[in-house]
Amino acid sequence: MTYSLAGDQPDPIGVAVIGAGYWGPNLVRNFQATPSFRVRWLCDLDLDRARRVLGGYSTITATDDYSAILDDDEVQAVAIATPAGTHLDVAMAALRAGKHVLVEKPLAATFDDGRRLVEEADRRGLVLMCDHTYCYTPAVARIREIVRSGELGELHYVDSVRINLGLVQRDIDVMWDLAPHDLSILDFVLPDDVTAVAVAAHGADPIGAGRSCVAYLTIELSTGAIAHIHVNWLSPTKVRTTMVGGSKRTLVWDDLNPTQRVSIFDRGVDLTMPEELGDDERREALISYRSGDMVAPALGEREALRAMVDEYASAIRGRRAPLTDGRSGLRVLGMLEAASRSLANRGEIVEVAR
Amino acid sequence: MTYSLAGDQPDPIGVAVIGAGYWGPNLVRNFQATPSFRVRWLCDLDLDRARRVLGGYSTITATDDYSAILDDDEVQAVAIATPAGTHLDVAMAALRAGKHVLVEKPLAATFDDGRRLVEEADRRGLVLMCDHTYCYTPAVARIREIVRSGELGELHYVDSVRINLGLVQRDIDVMWDLAPHDLSILDFVLPDDVTAVAVAAHGADPIGAGRSCVAYLTIELSTGAIAHIHVNWLSPTKVRTTMVGGSKRTLVWDDLNPTQRVSIFDRGVDLTMPEELGDDERREALISYRSGDMVAPALGEREALRAMVDEYASAIRGRRAPLTDGRSGLRVLGMLEAASRSLANRGEIVEVAR
Amino acid sequence: MTYSLAGDQPDPIGVAVIGAGYWGPNLVRNFQATPSFRVRWLCDLDLDRARRVLGGYSTITATDDYSAILDDDEVQAVAIATPAGTHLDVAMAALRAGKHVLVEKPLAATFDDGRRLVEEADRRGLVLMCDHTYCYTPAVARIREIVRSGELGELHYVDSVRINLGLVQRDIDVMWDLAPHDLSILDFVLPDDVTAVAVAAHGADPIGAGRSCVAYLTIELSTGAIAHIHVNWLSPTKVRTTMVGGSKRTLVWDDLNPTQRVSIFDRGVDLTMPEELGDDERREALISYRSGDMVAPALGEREALRAMVDEYASAIRGRRAPLTDGRSGLRVLGMLEAASRSLANRGEIVEVAR
Amino acid sequence: MTYSLAGDQPDPIGVAVIGAGYWGPNLVRNFQATPSFRVRWLCDLDLDRARRVLGGYSTITATDDYSAILDDDEVQAVAIATPAGTHLDVAMAALRAGKHVLVEKPLAATFDDGRRLVEEADRRGLVLMCDHTYCYTPAVARIREIVRSGELGELHYVDSVRINLGLVQRDIDVMWDLAPHDLSILDFVLPDDVTAVAVAAHGADPIGAGRSCVAYLTIELSTGAIAHIHVNWLSPTKVRTTMVGGSKRTLVWDDLNPTQRVSIFDRGVDLTMPEELGDDERREALISYRSGDMVAPALGEREALRAMVDEYASAIRGRRAPLTDGRSGLRVLGMLEAASRSLANRGEIVEVAR
Repeated sequence: MTYSLAGDQPDPIGVAVIGAGYWGPNLVRNFQATPSFRVRWLCDLDLDRARRVLGGYSTITATDDYSAILDDDEVQAVAIATPAGTHLDVAMAALRAGKHVLVEKPLAATFDDGRRLVEEADRRGLVLMCDHTYCYTPAVARIREIVRSGELGELHYVDSVRINLGLVQRDIDVMWDLAPHDLSILDFVLPDDVTAVAVAAHGADPIGAGRSCVAYLTIELSTGAIAHIHVNWLSPTKVRTTMVGGSKRTLVWDDLNPTQRVSIFDRGVDLTMPEELGDDERREALISYRSGDMVAPALGEREALRAMVDEYASAIRGRRAPLTDGRSGLRVLGMLEAASRSLANRGEIVEVAR
Repeated sequence: MTYSLAGDQPDPIGVAVIGAGYWGPNLVRNFQATPSFRVRWLCDLDLDRARRVLGGYSTITATDDYSAILDDDEVQAVAIATPAGTHLDVAMAALRAGKHVLVEKPLAATFDDGRRLVEEADRRGLVLMCDHTYCYTPAVARIREIVRSGELGELHYVDSVRINLGLVQRDIDVMWDLAPHDLSILDFVLPDDVTAVAVAAHGADPIGAGRSCVAYLTIELSTGAIAHIHVNWLSPTKVRTTMVGGSKRTLVWDDLNPTQRVSIFDRGVDLTMPEELGDDERREALISYRSGDMVAPALGEREALRAMVDEYASAIRGRRAPLTDGRSGLRVLGMLEAASRSLANRGEIVEVAR
Repeated sequence: MTYSLAGDQPDPIGVAVIGAGYWGPNLVRNFQATPSFRVRWLCDLDLDRARRVLGGYSTITATDDYSAILDDDEVQAVAIATPAGTHLDVAMAALRAGKHVLVEKPLAATFDDGRRLVEEADRRGLVLMCDHTYCYTPAVARIREIVRSGELGELHYVDSVRINLGLVQRDIDVMWDLAPHDLSILDFVLPDDVTAVAVAAHGADPIGAGRSCVAYLTIELSTGAIAHIHVNWLSPTKVRTTMVGGSKRTLVWDDLNPTQRVSIFDRGVDLTMPEELGDDERREALISYRSGDMVAPALGEREALRAMVDEYASAIRGRRAPLTDGRSGLRVLGMLEAASRSLANRGEIVEVAR
Repeated sequence: MTYSLAGDQPDPIGVAVIGAGYWGPNLVRNFQATPSFRVRWLCDLDLDRARRVLGGYSTITATDDYSAILDDDEVQAVAIATPAGTHLDVAMAALRAGKHVLVEKPLAATFDDGRRLVEEADRRGLVLMCDHTYCYTPAVARIREIVRSGELGELHYVDSVRINLGLVQRDIDVMWDLAPHDLSILDFVLPDDVTAVAVAAHGADPIGAGRSCVAYLTIELSTGAIAHIHVNWLSPTKVRTTMVGGSKRTLVWDDLNPTQRVSIFDRGVDLTMPEELGDDERREALISYRSGDMVAPALGEREALRAMVDEYASAIRGRRAPLTDGRSGLRVLGMLEAASRSLANRGEIVEVAR
């Protein structure tokens, strides 16, 4: 919050949540918890569902008509948690009605749709934000700091695993369901000058679901480093681990270990490059191993969604791009589309659109 | 052992170990521990190294001359633990001298070299065995039983991770160093009618070691199932996990969890296929989720290398192919070579030689 | 719920929550989530605190006057989440006003206070329930079934650890703060004919807080089995594990391992008793070791507090004792008081009051 | 080793190992591995057992006659790994024959026996060492440094758990079998001015083995801090954890986690003591919580037994008391005897003999 004087508390931002499915209720709860927003509507095509989410003790209005929201002058901002295929229409209508827009990941169903939203928001000077929730966890916020400060040295590799017995989605494969988390985190923590160049993806649909339920993405980064993501709906065990290997240190994030989510290892392999290279044997001799301490930094306990909602308010108030703006959503879409094309071509490497 | 009457204990098999580096001492120790063998020699080009391995209390003879071993009529069997590049020459000489041969993995430096060894052993009626040690752990022996019995149902996917801060090898990349373990296990546990068809491999050499230090292999199996292997020399943490997903159950092997190495989960996603398929919505409706118990079977505590050595003796005595014979070593080489070609071609999918 | 016909849904039970501190908000949330109750009031001496808990979107009334609640005929039930020292007065007043009463653990500040509440509720035919929340987790519900069914055989020992960096309480020591959880679970899962006979307690106040921050309780059970509880406010790591050893099997409950909370081990030591005992050596010979499988049963994901609230409704409707009735709260008080006396006497063993 | 010049390598110390049961073979292996010793004999009343331990390739002599060893002038040192009940006789005979003596834990069957050995060794100027192996692990060596340096601040509590499905011993209970490890570690890491004052012990023999199979020891330290030890032969899972809580930091040693055995937490509860104490409320206000980083120091990979053997050689050569000398063994016996008396008196607190 940028307002610090007592008594100078700004008026809350009127907000409406569109979509009362899996994610919408979490948005409602978090918007309610902060004085920065005043929730005015919860909208769903299925009015009963919206009512059930609000329950029997709420003063918020349920509706199935989102034009009522767009017409409500007290609504300055919307949050869209509908299926990805509807993001373009709903978000575009909201932008055209002059509302700031927060969209659940992925930003849109295609890179081109996403670009249209980014351009519209730019044109109108409105905030377009993508709800990359993980970027607002204390762990990822800290990882971003650590990676971008150079504390790990030069980035060597990123390895991410996100597997679980998950809901087989009706409209999207496991890559579009789960990898946006890993890709948005990757995009968030990378230094500004490191970009994704190309993607290869392999997948399988062993249960005959009609779409990949297991997938592996390999991402070539502009520095020659490699990132790899494993997503899987069929795993009986839940794993959520990301390793970020650097030339000086390696960081391991285990999101399921609440007492030690982030560990920074001063262990690794060093290679001292002699000035005149050539003699292989001599080169070998210069490999050495570090086996130093491990440090697990203390992290706060802030709820990610609450921090995301605060960033939305702050971006609206400051008329600035939020940390996870439409452009970051667009970069994630670029990687996802390349991955889909690769998957359709037996793992062929595909350049990432910009 | 096939001899069970007291007094009917056969004469021990004279054996020589060639190579006193990392693995040779383990072979010496295990050959010593069984009455099936009598260790006669430990050979290394570096005689001092062989002597140091034997120590000051041993009656075994150290030598740096392996022709002495080949000339020793009391030696019926050799065990070769020298670098892979020398396997062809040393093993071929031993076979030609009429000795049974056990070779440390990989069987040879190339698929063609391996094939020559297999053919030579066949021609001479000698045992050619590959020391795929993991196949002799109680865990993998049990996994083989479980997978091949159909207890897991149809095989859906295999995912294997073998990462650690490892020695960067002088002559081979991380794939040739570590993936033989995973590939030999995969080969060992798969039903006979399931074969590896093609491989794609992605890797990186972020430290400039001159060879890949991180690699990912994707293997297409003949049934359409997928296998994936992650090997990494640079990881500060050690992970050795293999997941075998099936249509009925999923098995997780965590080799670093001694009290629960193997877990069998009755959890998963089921898809009931209606007779006339067509209506997508109807198909969706038939996805269901199982969330049953998990069972961790009791496993024995047998040392793998001891069991491997016993299998070698038994194969020699029975003049039969050992469980991990030259052909299994050859299949592993086929996958490794395809992976190397893929790696050199930016992950292009490559068919596996047979 | 005992009403199953559509349209036969009974009127909700009017309920008021007294105490808006740490636990009260959880009660409010769970009462709201079930149609069995209608929340009418949230009461706290600090009216602002009650208002903050309700937030800006709620139709529930905040008050700081609990006599208003007692006078409200639409309130049939109250839930008391105030400090233990106030339980007697508040609960007694509520009972005398004819309300059913749910009390946060411990039931009261002393065994005698607890007994007065039990007797008052009995006299008036009202439900008196103690919120032993853990007893309503799927894990503990299952453990109760398993232990009482005899699946573990004869009970040998119970070992419970509940340690964490916890809030040093103003009015009670670590035993009164944390051990009620373990004691209520113990009371809940034990077969009806097994009772606590005596308690020894050791503790320390190393930080000079004026009360024990670390404590160990040893409980002698009527069968000769032993139970032991370790509670600690100063531990930097969080552990919540209970082991229940039996003659046939041993159960381990790890509440912090969501994917495998309960594990049942078919491992143990067996002693076959020969008919004529006497020869020690012969007795020794009859010790044998089982090393069988481990099974982790699938457990539901029900929220404990929701299940507790449902049990409260069901007990009120059925005019029956709830699973964790006042008497169970009283038995827990008996053990706590014995532990306190032991602690004051350097660990002297103290009989448990009945 | 105190000799550092090349060529100045001293003659090896002739050593004999007495007892070829569970522990003896480990001693033989480690004495063999160091040039400081020359193993001359392995002695066991069961000559065949000694021969089996040596195997078919060893130049060491097996014997069942320990007087032959005592008469051998080339033997300067013995290592005794026989049952505790025989320690007094065997060790006393060895000392009287002028041999240095290493004894497996516990030093002797009683405190008085132990004292006689200590006095005899003192009188003769011979090394008497107790094989408290854990004290020579890199983890415990480091813990000793950390605790004694004051890095943890003032010692608050020690909590140790050592449970497993273990061999029910014929001659001793679980306390005498397992607690010597924890007690010797406690004795080793404590600052010199902190001593054990009194012990209370609770135990159970639920399987009717004739001796306690589960036991809990509470130890009052001279500073008012508390130590607690849980040992158990019946647990289906293996736990070996020790927590050392201090006023500044808390250390957790998990011996079964090879990648993170020791963790030092900068988390805890602080109490700022105002000069004039009196007002309880004010005191409460001064409790604060630290939630800082955790550091897991890098530890070497040295085998403990090898380091113990080196310390034995070094003490003999330097004619100095070894780190775990007879006196430390005696202090452990003092605590064990007090625990046994307490156990026999239903947990009564018993003073520790000095």
